[in-house]
Amino acid sequence: MPAAEAVETLDGWYCLHDFRSVNWSAWKKASEDERKQAIQELNQLMGDWEGVEKEKNGSFGFYTIVGQKADLLFMNLRPTMEELTELEMAFNKTKIAEYLEPAYSYVSVVELSTYMSKAEDMEKSPEIQARLHPILPKWNHVCFYPMDKRREVDDNWYSMEFEERGRLMYDHGMTGRKYAGKVRQMITGSMGFDDWEWGVTLYAHDILQFKKLIYEMRFDEVSARFAEFGSFYIGHRKERDDLDGIFSV
Amino acid sequence: MPAAEAVETLDGWYCLHDFRSVNWSAWKKASEDERKQAIQELNQLMGDWEGVEKEKNGSFGFYTIVGQKADLLFMNLRPTMEELTELEMAFNKTKIAEYLEPAYSYVSVVELSTYMSKAEDMEKSPEIQARLHPILPKWNHVCFYPMDKRREVDDNWYSMEFEERGRLMYDHGMTGRKYAGKVRQMITGSMGFDDWEWGVTLYAHDILQFKKLIYEMRFDEVSARFAEFGSFYIGHRKERDDLDGIFSV
Amino acid sequence: MPAAEAVETLDGWYCLHDFRSVNWSAWKKASEDERKQAIQELNQLMGDWEGVEKEKNGSFGFYTIVGQKADLLFMNLRPTMEELTELEMAFNKTKIAEYLEPAYSYVSVVELSTYMSKAEDMEKSPEIQARLHPILPKWNHVCFYPMDKRREVDDNWYSMEFEERGRLMYDHGMTGRKYAGKVRQMITGSMGFDDWEWGVTLYAHDILQFKKLIYEMRFDEVSARFAEFGSFYIGHRKERDDLDGIFSV
Amino acid sequence: MPAAEAVETLDGWYCLHDFRSVNWSAWKKASEDERKQAIQELNQLMGDWEGVEKEKNGSFGFYTIVGQKADLLFMNLRPTMEELTELEMAFNKTKIAEYLEPAYSYVSVVELSTYMSKAEDMEKSPEIQARLHPILPKWNHVCFYPMDKRREVDDNWYSMEFEERGRLMYDHGMTGRKYAGKVRQMITGSMGFDDWEWGVTLYAHDILQFKKLIYEMRFDEVSARFAEFGSFYIGHRKERDDLDGIFSV
Amino acid sequence: MPAAEAVETLDGWYCLHDFRSVNWSAWKKASEDERKQAIQELNQLMGDWEGVEKEKNGSFGFYTIVGQKADLLFMNLRPTMEELTELEMAFNKTKIAEYLEPAYSYVSVVELSTYMSKAEDMEKSPEIQARLHPILPKWNHVCFYPMDKRREVDDNWYSMEFEERGRLMYDHGMTGRKYAGKVRQMITGSMGFDDWEWGVTLYAHDILQFKKLIYEMRFDEVSARFAEFGSFYIGHRKERDDLDGIFSV
Repeated sequence: MPAAEAVETLDGWYCLHDFRSVNWSAWKKASEDERKQAIQELNQLMGDWEGVEKEKNGSFGFYTIVGQKADLLFMNLRPTMEELTELEMAFNKTKIAEYLEPAYSYVSVVELSTYMSKAEDMEKSPEIQARLHPILPKWNHVCFYPMDKRREVDDNWYSMEFEERGRLMYDHGMTGRKYAGKVRQMITGSMGFDDWEWGVTLYAHDILQFKKLIYEMRFDEVSARFAEFGSFYIGHRKERDDLDGIFSV
Repeated sequence: MPAAEAVETLDGWYCLHDFRSVNWSAWKKASEDERKQAIQELNQLMGDWEGVEKEKNGSFGFYTIVGQKADLLFMNLRPTMEELTELEMAFNKTKIAEYLEPAYSYVSVVELSTYMSKAEDMEKSPEIQARLHPILPKWNHVCFYPMDKRREVDDNWYSMEFEERGRLMYDHGMTGRKYAGKVRQMITGSMGFDDWEWGVTLYAHDILQFKKLIYEMRFDEVSARFAEFGSFYIGHRKERDDLDGIFSV
Repeated sequence: MPAAEAVETLDGWYCLHDFRSVNWSAWKKASEDERKQAIQELNQLMGDWEGVEKEKNGSFGFYTIVGQKADLLFMNLRPTMEELTELEMAFNKTKIAEYLEPAYSYVSVVELSTYMSKAEDMEKSPEIQARLHPILPKWNHVCFYPMDKRREVDDNWYSMEFEERGRLMYDHGMTGRKYAGKVRQMITGSMGFDDWEWGVTLYAHDILQFKKLIYEMRFDEVSARFAEFGSFYIGHRKERDDLDGIFSV
Repeated sequence: MPAAEAVETLDGWYCLHDFRSVNWSAWKKASEDERKQAIQELNQLMGDWEGVEKEKNGSFGFYTIVGQKADLLFMNLRPTMEELTELEMAFNKTKIAEYLEPAYSYVSVVELSTYMSKAEDMEKSPEIQARLHPILPKWNHVCFYPMDKRREVDDNWYSMEFEERGRLMYDHGMTGRKYAGKVRQMITGSMGFDDWEWGVTLYAHDILQFKKLIYEMRFDEVSARFAEFGSFYIGHRKERDDLDGIFSV
Repeated sequence: MPAAEAVETLDGWYCLHDFRSVNWSAWKKASEDERKQAIQELNQLMGDWEGVEKEKNGSFGFYTIVGQKADLLFMNLRPTMEELTELEMAFNKTKIAEYLEPAYSYVSVVELSTYMSKAEDMEKSPEIQARLHPILPKWNHVCFYPMDKRREVDDNWYSMEFEERGRLMYDHGMTGRKYAGKVRQMITGSMGFDDWEWGVTLYAHDILQFKKLIYEMRFDEVSARFAEFGSFYIGHRKERDDLDGIFSV
């Protein structure tokens, strides 16, 4: 068995998903002054991140998360990984970070695979370039999960022929297309960067569409036979104006 | 192998299972006044949730849980996920939440599958509508567990024909019917919302019936070959009047 | 493939295994008075539990556990699950519970399977009734572990014929009989109650017999092909009179 | 398929591996006096354990461990499990134990299998008796890991014929013999006592020999097909005289 | 089936990867003086480690890590394991270690396999000697992950013929060679030393090359069929001069 032909990927902005849980007990013990200053500092930092987005040097999204896995998600995209490392460290040094316990994080890079057409043709396309350097949609809801492709004896993605893989990905894409206008997805690659092979970030106006899409896709051969999923995180987009409400106690 | 035909689902109210462990040491260190106020605040919040149920805009259940996994379960259903996110945050900001450590949570939506008849026919049925927007039974005992359907080479639920899946689900339903009047079940779907594909919440007057049902069902082909189970939580229904007893120290 | 025929079970007393680790640093920081009162309160609670056993309304065992997994095991059996929930909550509210950190717990019900004879015949037998409502043996050593029966493609317990399962269980029982007088076992069922399907609690005068029994049984076909094991806990029976020694610092 | 024939084991002293991590922050906060007394108390306890070894009623080894998994290993062998339980509890009550957080422990009994000759013949051999009641070698380095034998459909150790198992164990032993004088091993059985089936404790003068032995053995059929390994712990033998250096801050 | 022929390895310096998370809340609570002294002490310790590197008695690398898994990586190589154990203990006793919580560690030894030529020929080669006692590259980015080779029924690395393994490793090496000048790798063996069989440490000027290499390699037969991966850690090389910036709050 010769090695299977790898698919080339196009890679765009680096991406950090930073999930946090609020330590409410500690937060309530802080003085009103401390709380006020902490919110203000966070507000300003988020303002800076929005400024980067306005200048198209990255993108930023802020979300509340449902359930006990996390309370908040801070999501940043940047042209280099170093910028992410630095903004993460700056965030960790803020006052409010003392009350925001790490819950989960994911390190990846926006990725497009070239099963459908040549990498060099794709790279020239302005539409492709826009997808590689995305401004995060201002849609209501977000869903994130990491995933792998299986490498088992009879269902081994990485031993399959390029054409067969391309066919399965094409069928999968067809399922996704039915949800055009309802769900937008951003695929980020994380081999070498984090514990799963890909991260999937979905956006929707109607949160139920996440479930419908994922449910329908699970019957696609590529998911049924080859997908392994990590934890799922779901939440709602918030803005800087929501900070006072979120942190009021 | 073409993609298998997905089954359509009907989806109703969103559901949050919120399991908590009491930090008794900290609770005992609080002053009697603090404890009294904390209980009163929780009592009022639970009263508000009961009010929502009375107006048929959701449902609420409160339970004590056996064993070290958790002490309490707060369960809420609402027409939108945002309402759940907000009530979770409000709960987290209460005084008593400082003593109720997160133990486990589950995010899902009430779901009915349409193996047996057409989705559109089902949707018109008032009985189906009632099952999609359920008032949680006031039965004595509750049992919760999440589950997946397997996707292994020889036992891959998502690669099977629709008819075969329907047949296995029908047989499974027949087993469930033997327990009519003894066990009531609510199935919630959680693909895209949480880490398993479904949540199962059971109610019984006689707690032993949970074991009998699950034991008998395990021999159904659909469970024997395709079911993967998460953790099981078991407990008893309590009311607002029980709060003083539960929290007295 | 039709569903396999389930085996009926006879169910007796509910059972809570409550494993705890002593927080020695905190315990030593308590005043001698506090420690004395805490031990006295525990002593009295254990006396109450022994009283229940004397009236044949349940049973109680107290054990020290070897290794870092836990230090102590409190084991109670009762006619109803509610009684277990209540005694667990009462225990959690005691002074000494502030120093006894949860290490592991198991919720189950004493169970006998009816592979060998009809359930209704068994139910009438006074010997069977005694086994369903057991007084825990006052033997020196205890061993606990939870287990599942496998559901894999080629080794799927729940897809096998009733007769074949009965035969394997019979052979297994024959191995167990060799240890009559050396090891006593109590099987508790936990489907729907906890994360594994069964709990196994063994008693011996000579602790090595646990290893010999389990080792020999592992070669039984039913264990070799179908058993999955959780964590093993091992310890020694103690009495109320031992409390002072155990907690002296 | 009849049950496979179990192999008899000879069992010797009980064994407790007790891994600890030093809480350096807390240790440094203790007064110099407290630290001095704590070290002295530990020194004396270790002296007692050495005394037991001198009288051939057990054995004791003390080691520093590399990496973050643990800092120290205290290893004791005794004729009865109760003695281990008691010395563990005595250790937990010492002053220094307040600064030695539990990292991992393993409960087992020195075991020899009787694949090669009859149990009764072996039992009479003074050499075998010495191996069952070993004085831990004063060699420089120690390596510990727990392991299981697999029970999968095609590679099921417990379904194989006695002769075949004996043959594989013999080949395995031949690999081990190549390391005579370089690596000494002690096998302890832990079915019913802890979470894996065996513990392996190796000693070497040259630490690299652990890797060479384990690497070579992995190609033995018995390891390649049947071995499942837990975590590996590696360290260096220390004496009471090293206590001051280890704990100096 | 006879045992497969093991491959000989050449082993060089021992290696400790020490990942840490900064406890920023505690760090900010320290006085400016304490912080200054703590940084100075760390600076000096790192200076000592660099001194060892200058004298070619080992090597040292310092890195910031992206995401919540860890903040910093301290990596040291030494001729003996004892030196690593001692430097780890010395590090743990520093002031700054009170604020650097253990996040992950890995214990291994630089290893070269001899699939391609005879061990004794290789050992004489100065180039091989240099690779066994490497000075860590001063390249911008680092990537670390541990890995195993599978031992499953149909894909069992340790049951394959030497020649077949050699062929797969050769093909794998060919993929690696395409990245010459872009990615440098150091393989360290850890059987008997830590929980996985190997550690892989990669260096790159352009961080994206890690992903491209690992992605392409995953299609190599040896990875597709036989590789199991642990967690991935990714970061950037820093120097002593960066300490003030990293720790400024």
